[in-house]
Amino acid sequence: MSIPELEDLAEEIRKFLIENLSVTGGHLSPNLGVVELTLALHYIFDSPKDKLIFDVGHQSYVHKILTGRKDRFRTLRQYQGLCGFIKKSESEHDVWEAGHSSTSLSAAMGMAIARDARGETNKVVAIIGDGAMTGGMALEALNHIGHEKKDLLVILNDNEMSIAPNVGALHNYLSRIRSDKHYKKAKEEVEYLLKKIPAIGGTLAKTVEKLKDSLKYFLVSGVLFEELGYTYTGPVDGHNLNLLIETLKQADKISGPVLVHVVTVKGKGFPHAEADSHAWHGVGTYKIESGQVVKKQGPPMYTDIFGETLIELAKQDKRIIAVTPAMPGGSGLLPFAKAFPGRMFDVGIAEQHAATMCGALAAEGMKPVLAIYSTFMQRAYDQIVHDICRQDLNVIFAIDRAGFVGPDGETHHGVYDIAFLRHIPNMVLMMPKDENELRHMLKTAVDYDAGPIGVRYPRLPGLGVKLDSELKPIPIGTWEVLEEGVLAPEGIAILAVGPMVQVALQAASFLQREENLYIRVINARFIKPLDEQMLIELSNKRMNLITLEEASVLGGFGSAVLEFYSLRGIEGMNVKIIGVPDYFVEHGSIKEQLQEVGLTAEKVIAQVQSMVPLKRQRA
Amino acid sequence: MSIPELEDLAEEIRKFLIENLSVTGGHLSPNLGVVELTLALHYIFDSPKDKLIFDVGHQSYVHKILTGRKDRFRTLRQYQGLCGFIKKSESEHDVWEAGHSSTSLSAAMGMAIARDARGETNKVVAIIGDGAMTGGMALEALNHIGHEKKDLLVILNDNEMSIAPNVGALHNYLSRIRSDKHYKKAKEEVEYLLKKIPAIGGTLAKTVEKLKDSLKYFLVSGVLFEELGYTYTGPVDGHNLNLLIETLKQADKISGPVLVHVVTVKGKGFPHAEADSHAWHGVGTYKIESGQVVKKQGPPMYTDIFGETLIELAKQDKRIIAVTPAMPGGSGLLPFAKAFPGRMFDVGIAEQHAATMCGALAAEGMKPVLAIYSTFMQRAYDQIVHDICRQDLNVIFAIDRAGFVGPDGETHHGVYDIAFLRHIPNMVLMMPKDENELRHMLKTAVDYDAGPIGVRYPRLPGLGVKLDSELKPIPIGTWEVLEEGVLAPEGIAILAVGPMVQVALQAASFLQREENLYIRVINARFIKPLDEQMLIELSNKRMNLITLEEASVLGGFGSAVLEFYSLRGIEGMNVKIIGVPDYFVEHGSIKEQLQEVGLTAEKVIAQVQSMVPLKRQRA
Repeated sequence: MSIPELEDLAEEIRKFLIENLSVTGGHLSPNLGVVELTLALHYIFDSPKDKLIFDVGHQSYVHKILTGRKDRFRTLRQYQGLCGFIKKSESEHDVWEAGHSSTSLSAAMGMAIARDARGETNKVVAIIGDGAMTGGMALEALNHIGHEKKDLLVILNDNEMSIAPNVGALHNYLSRIRSDKHYKKAKEEVEYLLKKIPAIGGTLAKTVEKLKDSLKYFLVSGVLFEELGYTYTGPVDGHNLNLLIETLKQADKISGPVLVHVVTVKGKGFPHAEADSHAWHGVGTYKIESGQVVKKQGPPMYTDIFGETLIELAKQDKRIIAVTPAMPGGSGLLPFAKAFPGRMFDVGIAEQHAATMCGALAAEGMKPVLAIYSTFMQRAYDQIVHDICRQDLNVIFAIDRAGFVGPDGETHHGVYDIAFLRHIPNMVLMMPKDENELRHMLKTAVDYDAGPIGVRYPRLPGLGVKLDSELKPIPIGTWEVLEEGVLAPEGIAILAVGPMVQVALQAASFLQREENLYIRVINARFIKPLDEQMLIELSNKRMNLITLEEASVLGGFGSAVLEFYSLRGIEGMNVKIIGVPDYFVEHGSIKEQLQEVGLTAEKVIAQVQSMVPLKRQRA
Repeated sequence: MSIPELEDLAEEIRKFLIENLSVTGGHLSPNLGVVELTLALHYIFDSPKDKLIFDVGHQSYVHKILTGRKDRFRTLRQYQGLCGFIKKSESEHDVWEAGHSSTSLSAAMGMAIARDARGETNKVVAIIGDGAMTGGMALEALNHIGHEKKDLLVILNDNEMSIAPNVGALHNYLSRIRSDKHYKKAKEEVEYLLKKIPAIGGTLAKTVEKLKDSLKYFLVSGVLFEELGYTYTGPVDGHNLNLLIETLKQADKISGPVLVHVVTVKGKGFPHAEADSHAWHGVGTYKIESGQVVKKQGPPMYTDIFGETLIELAKQDKRIIAVTPAMPGGSGLLPFAKAFPGRMFDVGIAEQHAATMCGALAAEGMKPVLAIYSTFMQRAYDQIVHDICRQDLNVIFAIDRAGFVGPDGETHHGVYDIAFLRHIPNMVLMMPKDENELRHMLKTAVDYDAGPIGVRYPRLPGLGVKLDSELKPIPIGTWEVLEEGVLAPEGIAILAVGPMVQVALQAASFLQREENLYIRVINARFIKPLDEQMLIELSNKRMNLITLEEASVLGGFGSAVLEFYSLRGIEGMNVKIIGVPDYFVEHGSIKEQLQEVGLTAEKVIAQVQSMVPLKRQRA
């Protein structure tokens, strides 16, 4: 294909993306930003022999179109449809899956070592955004790659923005490179100057020669990467196909690690997205002409309730400081940042740093609130154990996207945080049954001065319940009985967590209506500590128990209940645990995901029916 | 105190450290390296008002001596004695605890934000080694600090070595700075040159002035840190008290983030340690004159058996590649590296990168073996979930220091890996009862081609059992009955993991001898998957079960057994779980730690005796 033909293709792809995503939703602006870059990569490199590794992978739509998946785009991010990220099972061209940021350099390094060990000659190319580059593991890899000198190409896709505007010294550094007119002029003048200096013999001449190299590095920039051992090229206009292809051709000839700095515009070619690429990063359905995003009516999201409540609390408590690792918008913290400039810190894609920094804030008497998605909290596990819980520091974790997340799928579900937090000493963990309770839990967390405390909440709208104006702390480790049921021996109680409380209530209501069966329903709002008094009461009554959680059934809340009875030496309890089974659940709607794993009222009803002979329960 | 007096004090402290540690053992060479630095810090700064944050904290002995803990040094790292790391409960001068590397910059940033929020003026100083600086979270913090411009002092303690010789591009960069004679000369010549250039008016003069600044940065080095937003000073001789004090005084006057690059010699003043600072990093008791380390006789450590067996396996399988995050010696991989140059990669303190890189190696058909301490594996939790297990890649985890670790104490115990690995889909996890079984498990792991597999082993010598010369894979998910016991209904079986198998056997032997009570003892060598057939057999026989593990009882192996019966709907099982309780266990010997939490044969015997009326069991 000729360059003009490729340019036509680029326009066609852009049109295709804008049209398709208007129907399905998806990561629009990141993909519009890499149309030319992806074309150039596939033009120069021989995929799948050459390995194209897309960091995060939400910018891989163009790659998918070019590798035979155009026809499936109407199913994008839908149940059993095309995945929104790289997916090996879809194509041999998909060589490395991700969903979390900053993994591509490590992956590229592994593939380069494997290639050399097997005596092969394929290319390895990592495509990483400037935001992802500030993640600790990317920096670890950058350091290791620069040291090992393997042949490996890093494409720094610099769009001045990850999901939120970027943070950090590295970002500032990249900005300086981009606007290097000043440097370019200085460079020319200095070269002119150097030419005028007469050669004064050996040492100085050599020095000047060396200096010239150094100057070149410094003045044409990229010195930071050069210092780390990379050959640096750029910045290159990421929408100029001709230039991209030439640059990649040149870079391909250089041995050792090479970094090509490509400057792209997120949302390129769709004016609405170019104007606000943040809002158009991941988007639902929209109208192409007006750029109007179709909004769903209904109660506010848990996320928004969190953000609003935190503002109320921060008005009364100056110790509160909010911290987010690159998710100010997604975490509902933008209104907070506006209300309290200087009290919200976006640290960039840096979950580890965020957590430990919160620990230190707490050590100095502040009330840090780390707003973090459950799935990204996985990155800070060690910091939570070693820095926060071991030192028993008053850090508040606002754990968003707990449970299934829908279309982002298996890389993003928040189904492990109970299992990875529950066993850490000193940790307190809550989940509300509705958005009003979330508000009281945040108050509980702020009032709690005895160590770390977390509240997890789902990626869902609230139930639309009335919000209490007065915020009251909930006594730590106390559950709430929502339906009394029949307390007779051999009765049944459901211990439900978060949104599963509604499922339990539905099941109980059905059983009462249809089978005259009275089930106790308990809102197990504290996952740790458990309500031990209530558990003992249940065992005294010889109740049969069902635990219900939208989280890994291994190591989850149900296991905590089982452990409690075993550790207390209480024998003969019949506890049935229900949760997310031991496999990774793919993308789809949250409803479909719950259905797939059986976290539904129907299944709970069936469980109850199978558990105890019904006649015993009848009035 | 005058400088000469301080110098005398430095010598005195050195002598004290060398003498005391010869009796107690401890981190000798890191502390000998920072005697003058610590004195200078305490001389210039007003601790505890000013915050001195020691990264890792194993180099804080001098700080402890200077803050009133000299008399307790004979109890160093002993049960209820002085902690080998920073410990808040010991002194108000200990403001931030650690044990894992690379946390100090995040802690410093948190404390700087808190200080400014409260309108205070204290200084915040982080002391971090060049090895720790390459950890991802330190780089995340470096990036954030450079961006926020808070007043904060970073002391880069550059000893060219963390525990092992350092790895990475940043290390190479620092080496260049240290040996900057060439740069210094170039600088002088260029300055001479610039003076000679006549001012040709506005633009060029300004350019030259700017250039002069740039040159200065580049030539006196530190340009990387300057680019990231720090004022850089150094490198400074870390054993010249006068120079250190002057440099810190100057640095103290500069606002914004300042990085002082101090070059120290690990083991300074003790020739044996200077000659091999790696071996003298953490050391047992030794003879001062000869520098002879007192070695314990006995069977080889599990660690060494791992290293040797991996060599055997790698001879036959070219796919095997070993990876370590900065622990080539501690992980027993030095003989492997010698035997197979180019097949062992030390990636530096970079657990996240190490894990994901192993994932990519596996994706390309290699058999990566990630040798990692259980406690440091916590840093790679997300990478294990998201990159390795989700993609079901054939990564082998060699999990060293599983269980209690003794004198390093609460920051280093390997008691959470079962709880944080067991719930991840696709994971296989083993632990051997002895060193011979470890060998077969490594063979099992190499032969296993169906996804990630880990084998955990303790920081202990082996039992001294005979080593089979032929390595045979163990069928996945099968346990081993070591003592049959009495299988009659209401019998008792102990399901023990790893070293706890010995404890179970001791208990069984005692009960048999003293009480004529026959207990079944099972080597639960697979933690995941469980031996489901055996569990069903046990339930069919209505056995009472005791699970025994040197790991967190919350979310541990015992919970897995409880979950199994609940998920299978098998009612009425009596399972008593025993493990490490829900708090952080402090330093001491492993034996004392086991005693403290009750993981002893005595406690198991008492548990058995309390569990079932004894008469039922008698023959």
